Amino acid sequence: MNRTPVLRHHCTKGVSLGVFCLFASMAVSAQSPVFQNTLLPEPSRMTTASGSIPFTKDFTVSLSGAHNVILEEATRRTLDAMEAYTGVQLNKAPQDANATLTIQVQDTTGTRPTLDTDESYSIDSTSNKVILQAKTVFGALYGLETLQQLLQVEDGHYAIPAVQINDSPRFPWRGLMLDVSRHFMPLPVIYRTLDGMAAVKLNVFHWHLTDDQGFRIESKRFPKLTLMGSDGLFYTQDQVRDVIRYASARGIRVVPEFDVPGHVTSWFVGMPEFASVQRPYAIARPFGVWDGALDPTQENTYKFLDAFIGEMADLFPDEYMHMGGDESNGKDWKATPHIVAFMQAHNMKSTEELQTYFSTRVLALVKKHHKQMVGWDEILNPGTPKDAIIQSWRGVESLSVAAKQGNRGILSAPYYLDGMKSAERMYLDDPIPDGSTLTAEQQKLILGGEVCMWAEQITPQTVDSRIWPRTAALAERFWSTRETRDVPDMYRRLAVESIRLDGLGLTHISGPQSGLRQLAGSEEGSSQLAVLISVLSPGSLHERYSQQKTSQLTPMANPVDYTRPDPPIREELVLLVERYLHSASPTEHTAAHQQLTNLFQSWIATGAALDSVAAEHPKLNQLSLRRAQLPKLGLLGIQSIDSIESHTVPTSAWVEEQSTLLKAAAEHSELTNFAILPPLQQLFEAAGKQ
Amino acid sequence: MNRTPVLRHHCTKGVSLGVFCLFASMAVSAQSPVFQNTLLPEPSRMTTASGSIPFTKDFTVSLSGAHNVILEEATRRTLDAMEAYTGVQLNKAPQDANATLTIQVQDTTGTRPTLDTDESYSIDSTSNKVILQAKTVFGALYGLETLQQLLQVEDGHYAIPAVQINDSPRFPWRGLMLDVSRHFMPLPVIYRTLDGMAAVKLNVFHWHLTDDQGFRIESKRFPKLTLMGSDGLFYTQDQVRDVIRYASARGIRVVPEFDVPGHVTSWFVGMPEFASVQRPYAIARPFGVWDGALDPTQENTYKFLDAFIGEMADLFPDEYMHMGGDESNGKDWKATPHIVAFMQAHNMKSTEELQTYFSTRVLALVKKHHKQMVGWDEILNPGTPKDAIIQSWRGVESLSVAAKQGNRGILSAPYYLDGMKSAERMYLDDPIPDGSTLTAEQQKLILGGEVCMWAEQITPQTVDSRIWPRTAALAERFWSTRETRDVPDMYRRLAVESIRLDGLGLTHISGPQSGLRQLAGSEEGSSQLAVLISVLSPGSLHERYSQQKTSQLTPMANPVDYTRPDPPIREELVLLVERYLHSASPTEHTAAHQQLTNLFQSWIATGAALDSVAAEHPKLNQLSLRRAQLPKLGLLGIQSIDSIESHTVPTSAWVEEQSTLLKAAAEHSELTNFAILPPLQQLFEAAGKQ
Repeated sequence: MNRTPVLRHHCTKGVSLGVFCLFASMAVSAQSPVFQNTLLPEPSRMTTASGSIPFTKDFTVSLSGAHNVILEEATRRTLDAMEAYTGVQLNKAPQDANATLTIQVQDTTGTRPTLDTDESYSIDSTSNKVILQAKTVFGALYGLETLQQLLQVEDGHYAIPAVQINDSPRFPWRGLMLDVSRHFMPLPVIYRTLDGMAAVKLNVFHWHLTDDQGFRIESKRFPKLTLMGSDGLFYTQDQVRDVIRYASARGIRVVPEFDVPGHVTSWFVGMPEFASVQRPYAIARPFGVWDGALDPTQENTYKFLDAFIGEMADLFPDEYMHMGGDESNGKDWKATPHIVAFMQAHNMKSTEELQTYFSTRVLALVKKHHKQMVGWDEILNPGTPKDAIIQSWRGVESLSVAAKQGNRGILSAPYYLDGMKSAERMYLDDPIPDGSTLTAEQQKLILGGEVCMWAEQITPQTVDSRIWPRTAALAERFWSTRETRDVPDMYRRLAVESIRLDGLGLTHISGPQSGLRQLAGSEEGSSQLAVLISVLSPGSLHERYSQQKTSQLTPMANPVDYTRPDPPIREELVLLVERYLHSASPTEHTAAHQQLTNLFQSWIATGAALDSVAAEHPKLNQLSLRRAQLPKLGLLGIQSIDSIESHTVPTSAWVEEQSTLLKAAAEHSELTNFAILPPLQQLFEAAGKQ
Repeated sequence: MNRTPVLRHHCTKGVSLGVFCLFASMAVSAQSPVFQNTLLPEPSRMTTASGSIPFTKDFTVSLSGAHNVILEEATRRTLDAMEAYTGVQLNKAPQDANATLTIQVQDTTGTRPTLDTDESYSIDSTSNKVILQAKTVFGALYGLETLQQLLQVEDGHYAIPAVQINDSPRFPWRGLMLDVSRHFMPLPVIYRTLDGMAAVKLNVFHWHLTDDQGFRIESKRFPKLTLMGSDGLFYTQDQVRDVIRYASARGIRVVPEFDVPGHVTSWFVGMPEFASVQRPYAIARPFGVWDGALDPTQENTYKFLDAFIGEMADLFPDEYMHMGGDESNGKDWKATPHIVAFMQAHNMKSTEELQTYFSTRVLALVKKHHKQMVGWDEILNPGTPKDAIIQSWRGVESLSVAAKQGNRGILSAPYYLDGMKSAERMYLDDPIPDGSTLTAEQQKLILGGEVCMWAEQITPQTVDSRIWPRTAALAERFWSTRETRDVPDMYRRLAVESIRLDGLGLTHISGPQSGLRQLAGSEEGSSQLAVLISVLSPGSLHERYSQQKTSQLTPMANPVDYTRPDPPIREELVLLVERYLHSASPTEHTAAHQQLTNLFQSWIATGAALDSVAAEHPKLNQLSLRRAQLPKLGLLGIQSIDSIESHTVPTSAWVEEQSTLLKAAAEHSELTNFAILPPLQQLFEAAGKQ
């Protein structure tokens, strides 16, 4: 579609809390001047027509033909959401016929999605009715999500625009991995994460249930695993069944991960008998790669795994089971005489070969229990069985290798949320990159991607702000066409989606705001602090670890924890400076000038105010350098604009001083990075060219 | 203590989002210039000394002598909270001796609080150690809450000030009643409500589980009650046991209410055989008093109640059970020949007498199952048994009548949160009012009070903002001495406590903020909307009902739902105008002048901005009148100040115009009330006196 960005009316009021209005610019389709496309992910095919269907209290729904309880409940949720959004009270009882919305599903027998579920749907609202059609219930769920996103305002009234959508996903595996071992995530986190996933059409919840720092799933056969390896923080099997039911009703598969043979310290606290090296095992508090590993030479290890996998295979109905396999460093194996002897006896030259032996046996156990095995890319070797699925965390290349070997693959390497990269940087990374040498047939082996949320440095209070809204952008990468790559348009829709996700109860906005109130002790103080926090992003996992040596015991309610990765102001300032420097419209230039001035003034004002807040809240001194730098950056902005406006060449002393400032600001410091430096640099350079 | 309010440093920056800094003024005790008392509720006896104990990573704890798991867990929670607040990582393993904090509890056998639990505790931090002593585990829990509130900042470092506290509650029954029938409240609401209650030393969670609009508690003996009477929204018995365990571990008793003989429509959907009048029963959607009532003349009714009460008595371990009794209008009884015949046969002259007969029989059943009965004041009659406890919702008088009859009583009438009154207005109402004619002995029959949260017009999204922080002020009424009545000081501490409660996960601040984002569709729009919302409060239950005829099906995600009762700006503006008009200090006068000007300017600016937001979000037109009035009120403020500053007599035309404006603004409209009119009126009148 041909989109023309236009400013929303209320966007001329300038800056508030460092969050301003550039994103309110809306796309307007060429076909229909009123349709504002805020769909995310973009449907694969959509045409718009003129006209729309008013959304009033007379809006009704009919479930035409067969339906089941999943469809009925999803329809009810959709109507509830539309009612809440509009304030229009509906008659929600399904009608026999003549309803505004008719839902037609061919096959309503499905109660749980699988990898080969048909997820397509169509929406036609061009004839004064909305017809939603799908082959399966799960396709219909996606259609209902799209319908909610279609609801818009025209001339002061709510309406559903006239569109024809024929939509289906590009990849069948669109996942989010959540680590609940390093920091346990209570059930409310799990449920709201599933809500967010459903809203953006993700369909695999990969539950990383075990790791060195905690064993989080009840085993009734081996109760010592949680009794001694979880600090009491784990999910009961009843709870897991509820989660699976909830996920299934939202079109989401639940794939559990039990990471072996490494990352098993927490297993050994209660069951040291399966360890390669006998030493006192305690739940690991520091992070990193631990030496503890299952003994791959004991038959008892496989007997245990057989029983454990069997129990878990009964609990988790999905056809796929993840058995980890990453970062097993082989040290304990090399240090154990009977294991070394085993390797020699079996002519294994490296611990990698021993791991392949182990993986092959584990895969056989997984298959015995009627599951297919997924593993991290370490399990990929020339001898890896063809039916193992490779999840690539070390780079996209191994997926090519896997595909050429005939193994299916899932890409995760570019989608590590703890790298704290911008949505943009992750969004443009494709599971099948440009210049891929895979044949069309091999490309089909790339099942999709998974966003990964590791939990070294997150807590239940901060996890949402690390997952959302960036994951919504990646959901579009997995669902929409390869050609959907317009970054500003993605951000425009992402800003809208972020507010929708907030409305679902996700805490990516409210959590950090509450954190700032705790840090500042008052609403007033937190609004001052918000100005500083809004321009910072947290350092990556590695940056923070190098400074702070974080462990599971590190308190994580600090200023850095309430900074947001890829804060909205980053992209906003890029566009604002672009508009200021290059807009052909004098009006736009003047408006951008005013907005920039307001923003920079707020940075200048906040410095002194925060000094006072920090005097009573010493934790804020964790950002004392950033607090000192921000007003200077504001001044740089103001002075750059002054130079540009007055066509005055800045003095070389000023240029040198500002260069030093920008360089210092660009350094990772106080666990944070400034998120707004490139456009500032651009302004500064433009000033120098006067 | 002698307190001198002083301005915090960071409070000179003026207004932000309509929330500004007056409350940052801190009390400074006469004894110790550094102690900042933010305790809420106020301890019954406290003295301060000079000095303090630094709070560093070396802070440790020892559980001296006996302890149990409740105490251990509470200690752990306290250390976690202090660690999060300060960012200081502690060694949380209990020490054998020589710890910074020593906790000594005499009797650690208690696992569940009762009405006669000794709740006293003492804290002594005057000798470089903190000694916390209590007779029971539950007293110690209160001490731990106080300890968290004591933690403060001195000279840029965290510390525990030197104090001696000997504290115990004035009343043993300090409750919060939550109606989960008219709108169901999911478990997370229940848990966070309990967290908030524990923080302010409330000790009774009164769970209003049944009413016309929903039967919310699983009965295994009578499953039709929830199967047909709950829309599937109810608590299982397993869930209830978890809630009780959680509450007990926080010193909170759980008292269930099963409201009979009226308010039973939801019971009759599945079990119409116990109704006085046979008609088709469906779950009631509208609110109000319904005619349906249990048939008090059938022996089967009592057989059923015997079995049901027995089952619930097993589930709920507390010694008290609430059997309702309110608003049974007698209409169905009078309309039923066999009931009229029964009354005649038993020489009953009124349906009130018949209700007394019914209550007496129910009380016998409750006693049979080893419980004591609580009921609303309708159950009080000259014939009411002495062991029934009267909960008074119609007025404080009936408690006097009850006490003179020898019945114990609990006051709720002044503490109805749905009246949307200010904390101040409820705070000053005492369970034993001035001029009480009760003897000392009779006064002992007044057990305390209960705040009541009825759920006609609240949802899980808005319930917290209706309960908190006002309930914290009432917790002080029930705990602290009768003489604790300093309203500005209460508000000063309440502002701090409100932020603490926010940190516990309560959503009284974040929920409305999220709601505004949904209404405005963006963070920017919501910050404009917040200026308007901050000066409004929701109308009372009756005001809203008279305008909107709300039912259980009314969408409640409208602007009014995100206004807060007793918004912070109300008291802030009172004090600011007071300071502006009457401060002896020119500096204070000037600062107040500037703050008022900024505030009024923000009101003026927001009007036009909101018109634009509303064009894209029609729901905001629910506040079109308020949106038009606010800038005018801002102008009134600015012009009044101008008159005062310039000693100019305003024209009579202006005076008339502003009087008309103030009168119009004072009318309940668009479901809301302006919360800031009295101080504006004061300014306006001061202008007129120039």
